[in-house]
Amino acid sequence: MTTADNGVNVQALLDARQALKDAPDAALFTWRASSTWDHGVHSTTTIEKFHGLGAEQTHKAQSTFESDHPAVFAAEDNGITPIEYLLVGLAGCLTAGVASVAQNRGIQLRKVESVVEGSHDIRGILGADSDVRNGYEGIKVTFHIDADASRQEIEALVAQSQKRSAVFDALTNPTDVTVEVA
Amino acid sequence: MTTADNGVNVQALLDARQALKDAPDAALFTWRASSTWDHGVHSTTTIEKFHGLGAEQTHKAQSTFESDHPAVFAAEDNGITPIEYLLVGLAGCLTAGVASVAQNRGIQLRKVESVVEGSHDIRGILGADSDVRNGYEGIKVTFHIDADASRQEIEALVAQSQKRSAVFDALTNPTDVTVEVA
Repeated sequence: MTTADNGVNVQALLDARQALKDAPDAALFTWRASSTWDHGVHSTTTIEKFHGLGAEQTHKAQSTFESDHPAVFAAEDNGITPIEYLLVGLAGCLTAGVASVAQNRGIQLRKVESVVEGSHDIRGILGADSDVRNGYEGIKVTFHIDADASRQEIEALVAQSQKRSAVFDALTNPTDVTVEVA
Repeated sequence: MTTADNGVNVQALLDARQALKDAPDAALFTWRASSTWDHGVHSTTTIEKFHGLGAEQTHKAQSTFESDHPAVFAAEDNGITPIEYLLVGLAGCLTAGVASVAQNRGIQLRKVESVVEGSHDIRGILGADSDVRNGYEGIKVTFHIDADASRQEIEALVAQSQKRSAVFDALTNPTDVTVEVA
């Protein structure tokens, strides 16, 4: 019997997995963001509603995010750069995965920290060299984990988290993105 | 002679493009996020410093972001889900691109709004169907743009923005992501 409590309701997730096997339409979520240009390269994006379980859903609170570029890009730095938001998502997703897998395996976590670093050759977006891609050359995530588990068990947690991570998949594999003018 | 002013210092970007052609090392940026697990699937990520132009750089302010899952995932909804952060980044990047390209082409923008929707079959992350991917099935961006330009010119702005977008590239093409335990 495990007494580990990482605050993840694993039973609810296992129940959802079973329920959604028989109701695939309910598993189709649409996440949604609304963005408004402010000035220069500064924009503000809000997230509040999404669709899932066959119905419109609302987050507990509306969240607002500023995107801008720093002074070294001749901008006003009213928020992080758009590409940095990908690092935020990756860190959040892998960390949630580590907590969930640890809970499922009865491993008590004490501390989970990570540093995510994205290597970006900005000659791509500036159009200085057409052989340089616009996005990250690569991303490195380094976890520091303190848990009631062996190093091998901790490495297995991280590996399983990657395997089930939505953001890890979205960054390591291509996604079709359609852009339209209304 | 154009009088368009969208607040983008295009000359500085063109100068940077020229300068970085002759100094490729300065173009190598490293963006960085630090994340701490809070409880359950809730984590907090901060962004403040980055490396670029051959030196350590600091944003004007530290930014903090909460990642969590909503109540329908049996979580506390202390922030948006990690995968929603990808939509924030995409909206911010394409919008900054539209403003920059419009400035370069002498087109005055009055309003730029967008809605970004990501289709996500959560059977993937729940492990309910191994044929379903973990990430987005697809993402759709819809722009509403009011500008001193024809519809064709506006569509061309959006097309050029995609072509130079760091986040559009990062989502539509694969990136190598390495995850380690320190």
